[in-house]
Amino acid sequence: MQFFYQPDLSADMVTLSPEESKHCVKVLRKSCGDAIFLTDGKGTMVKAELVVADMDNCTAQIVERYENYGQRKGWFHLAVAPTKNPGRMEWLVEKAIEIGVEQISFIICDHSERERIDLKRLERIAVSALKQSNTAWLPEMNIVSFDDLLTQYASCECDKLMAWCDENNQSQLADIQFSTKSILLLIGPEGDFSPREIAMARQQQFKEVKLGDRRLRTETAALYGCCLVAAKLVGTEN
Amino acid sequence: MQFFYQPDLSADMVTLSPEESKHCVKVLRKSCGDAIFLTDGKGTMVKAELVVADMDNCTAQIVERYENYGQRKGWFHLAVAPTKNPGRMEWLVEKAIEIGVEQISFIICDHSERERIDLKRLERIAVSALKQSNTAWLPEMNIVSFDDLLTQYASCECDKLMAWCDENNQSQLADIQFSTKSILLLIGPEGDFSPREIAMARQQQFKEVKLGDRRLRTETAALYGCCLVAAKLVGTEN
Repeated sequence: MQFFYQPDLSADMVTLSPEESKHCVKVLRKSCGDAIFLTDGKGTMVKAELVVADMDNCTAQIVERYENYGQRKGWFHLAVAPTKNPGRMEWLVEKAIEIGVEQISFIICDHSERERIDLKRLERIAVSALKQSNTAWLPEMNIVSFDDLLTQYASCECDKLMAWCDENNQSQLADIQFSTKSILLLIGPEGDFSPREIAMARQQQFKEVKLGDRRLRTETAALYGCCLVAAKLVGTEN
Repeated sequence: MQFFYQPDLSADMVTLSPEESKHCVKVLRKSCGDAIFLTDGKGTMVKAELVVADMDNCTAQIVERYENYGQRKGWFHLAVAPTKNPGRMEWLVEKAIEIGVEQISFIICDHSERERIDLKRLERIAVSALKQSNTAWLPEMNIVSFDDLLTQYASCECDKLMAWCDENNQSQLADIQFSTKSILLLIGPEGDFSPREIAMARQQQFKEVKLGDRRLRTETAALYGCCLVAAKLVGTEN
């Protein structure tokens, strides 16, 4: 089963885009009367019955609605410094959505290798990952400076984690006991966070964590973080 | 720092391949007297001093040897059913090596989508991942049928895990207590393991595990498994 994406599911009749219609009729070989599933990426998942199975414009009648489909009690916000190679961020977005993430921020740090990122392209990748992975939540994505992100979270009641390569920092993410169900995880650039950024995070009581024994690339560290956080949030879904 | 790969490091003088020499002199701009690090992929890591910095054939004198560099007390053997799209196995190999894996088997299952795989190509990807990730262990890779793999492990003293999507199977990989430091993890094809294969694994006391709450693609499930196993094996490295 695969979801179709329709940002607006408020009406009871849905018309698929030409591209989605083609996929529905040509690839999935759906015909009138067949059931399809759609999501708006904002937590709504619906079952709909095809009433018009047309190559360019399929129309479906919504027969069942599921609100807050698979919503977690808390949230996971992944904040990662973009890598030089944009392709590595693309697969990170795809995999993070599959594993489960509510928000992805691309943070501009003191040691950032890359300050520009094609958010539009990443959003297209996010939508196709959303459809593939049967989740009804399209993560918010944005670009923000390290300082602004920390300011936004200054008074947020959540678990704030910063992953960096301090030899003396022995607490593994896997061993951290979360005090909430909402997690913000910061993953730095290849050059790691700057002393200034680390000091700033310490001031805001971020927990400093290690991701295993090895030095991982930025995108691998981010994915490792996604997996460990997902494992800790198991059972928090509706 | 990046390693160079040299399958044979038994002599005290090493000559790099033309390709490696070019990388050493042109990309890394190394010159005579500079130190480089090499691995044979079998646990040996050496520090060597460049004596000839030539574009086509660099020669280096080994000055320090580290045997069993970063060796874990146990091992992690990932056995995964190849996906239709070979690219997904390629990035899995790259990431698994970065995170840590001693062996990767591509298992042919009853529901396998793909029975042929370009092992040579995957070996080249493994070597470049090895160099990037500063590990001295090139994982063994092979293609094996599900039945043959289980026969090989019939009398092996290790933790045998099988990941599959059983609604009634509630034990999460994250919650499993390993009884050894050696783990075999089986990841099935998109169509999952067949009842016959599951029965066979049960006979051999495989623990059946879930990988989070969501249905993950084969390669994502495999990577999720790598991360959770790596987190459990933290501290077992030399």
